[in-house]
Amino acid sequence: MKLASLNDGTRDGRLVVVTKDLTRYTDASFLVPTLQSAVDNWARISPHLEALAGSLELGAVPSQRFHEHDALSPLPRAFQWADGSAYVNHVELVRKARGAGMPESFWTDPLIYQGGSDSFLRPREPIRVADEAYGIDMEGEVAVIVDDVRIGVTIDEARAAIRLVMLVNDVSLRGLIPDELAKGFGFFQSKPSSAFSPVAVTPDELGDAWDGSKVHLPLSVDLNGRAFGRANAGVDMTFDFPALIAHAARTRPLCAGTIIGSGTVSNKRDGAPGKPVEEGGVGYSCLAELRMIETIDEGEPRTPFLRFGDLVRIEMKDAYGHSIFGAIEQQVINYGREA
Amino acid sequence: MKLASLNDGTRDGRLVVVTKDLTRYTDASFLVPTLQSAVDNWARISPHLEALAGSLELGAVPSQRFHEHDALSPLPRAFQWADGSAYVNHVELVRKARGAGMPESFWTDPLIYQGGSDSFLRPREPIRVADEAYGIDMEGEVAVIVDDVRIGVTIDEARAAIRLVMLVNDVSLRGLIPDELAKGFGFFQSKPSSAFSPVAVTPDELGDAWDGSKVHLPLSVDLNGRAFGRANAGVDMTFDFPALIAHAARTRPLCAGTIIGSGTVSNKRDGAPGKPVEEGGVGYSCLAELRMIETIDEGEPRTPFLRFGDLVRIEMKDAYGHSIFGAIEQQVINYGREA
Repeated sequence: MKLASLNDGTRDGRLVVVTKDLTRYTDASFLVPTLQSAVDNWARISPHLEALAGSLELGAVPSQRFHEHDALSPLPRAFQWADGSAYVNHVELVRKARGAGMPESFWTDPLIYQGGSDSFLRPREPIRVADEAYGIDMEGEVAVIVDDVRIGVTIDEARAAIRLVMLVNDVSLRGLIPDELAKGFGFFQSKPSSAFSPVAVTPDELGDAWDGSKVHLPLSVDLNGRAFGRANAGVDMTFDFPALIAHAARTRPLCAGTIIGSGTVSNKRDGAPGKPVEEGGVGYSCLAELRMIETIDEGEPRTPFLRFGDLVRIEMKDAYGHSIFGAIEQQVINYGREA
Repeated sequence: MKLASLNDGTRDGRLVVVTKDLTRYTDASFLVPTLQSAVDNWARISPHLEALAGSLELGAVPSQRFHEHDALSPLPRAFQWADGSAYVNHVELVRKARGAGMPESFWTDPLIYQGGSDSFLRPREPIRVADEAYGIDMEGEVAVIVDDVRIGVTIDEARAAIRLVMLVNDVSLRGLIPDELAKGFGFFQSKPSSAFSPVAVTPDELGDAWDGSKVHLPLSVDLNGRAFGRANAGVDMTFDFPALIAHAARTRPLCAGTIIGSGTVSNKRDGAPGKPVEEGGVGYSCLAELRMIETIDEGEPRTPFLRFGDLVRIEMKDAYGHSIFGAIEQQVINYGREA
């Protein structure tokens, strides 16, 4: 089933069930008002939501046209957003780009940062930044929403706790990262609000593309209407979702509704970094990777970070070319100047 | 007024108003079910809660005995927990303890880490850790809950957004910190769940001890029934709460209900680190500081980190010796072995 939180003026939105083809929705708030409350009571509520989704597909319940731009992020705010860096290829490149080496342990010990989860952007909401010099970058990722997870969870338990899958644009301010990380406490100002896809889907909606641990489909990242990335989320994911969840829960429980991110999707080709889409490669899911490859090839980056007015679109299509999650589509805006 | 979230079996508890002397409470859930929902609508709801608190003090509404051990953390889970390190003296000592120097900028640029906020412990809940070798430490702190805060907030706006004050035990696993921080993404496994005081209070409850930016009272930290720390939260706080809030909101908004922590309260005396309470000093709010001072004085730390069975108590008393927030009192327990 596919779930969305419609913008009804409340902080957490109104829960609706959306058709598989994303064209229509039916209200689900008579069952449970919000997605967080659904995840809080998943075992009890999800069978009712599944039944409603079945009726919706059959046209047996009242429905209305679903507009992606009316959706909030599925969890407009969450109690936890923990973002991994599972595509270690990406980590290696981005660290190179800022002159930092990468310890060997990064290939065996998952890297996760604690993200801000109190104010996610809507999937179509502008990215408001005060200064282009902050080095604005998109990061296209896959994320899962989990149920309650105990301390010290096993990999199998972690896999069984995955409830929903969605996409995310983990916006980064690359120019603020080096100074912030040098302070030793991780990201804060360099990670402004993220945006998630218009719908979150249960793993069964992914069919064979979901193996219980990864999504085996290309992630489409477009920049100003041109294909920028088509990296496959199932390729080169060194740490799958159960591994990330178990890492996050090593010393503390995770509350239902916790979002675990994959980190920027990134594919290595034949041992070398992927080529741009226009050169027949799978491209990139963030600008920092391309800039690093340009630096390696040409001595310095040629592609700028995002500028005011730039438009980023992140989407994932199934084998038939149908959008699974709807699209994140965000324009970069000069904060305080848009009025 | 003083607010608490009673354990009623739900994830977010039931909102009650507590008397100033912490002896009685009256239900507030007919106004608004949870503290988060109160903070979500503070301008509209707080006058009603204040009126209820007034009636409670007068005995004009039904009330029941308030037991601190029935309280959850005021926000049992929150959308954001951002913890500063405002007592730079503490930062300097703890970094010394793990052999890390401190950049000069730490005296001018606030340090904040993004904490996990999805599963806070109850004020009297055991600290469950799998292994004493993780280096279990308490960290006694003051924290505030803020209203909505815009990106790029001014210091005055930040000050005006402070709604509630409480205490926190920011449990740390010192043994896991060096390897985790070396990875560059900040704390994750090394910061298990924190616990907050049984009640959160509006700043006016602090009287003259609240200057709009800091709490000028000693923080009592007891270990196994003995005074361990009496450091004054208003002394040596290099960055006050408005400064921490403005730092947190530089590139993103903060949602109402965001918790901002002070970092471990720590006083410097006459240019030298504070002395233990038993030697007439104000002592410490965490073990790492004492261990560092022992290392400086004696070549190696003498005091161990917390062991299974140890009892930590964190409280703050007003000028008359009355507990303001109730006490955090937590025993360290071997996770998985307590049954």
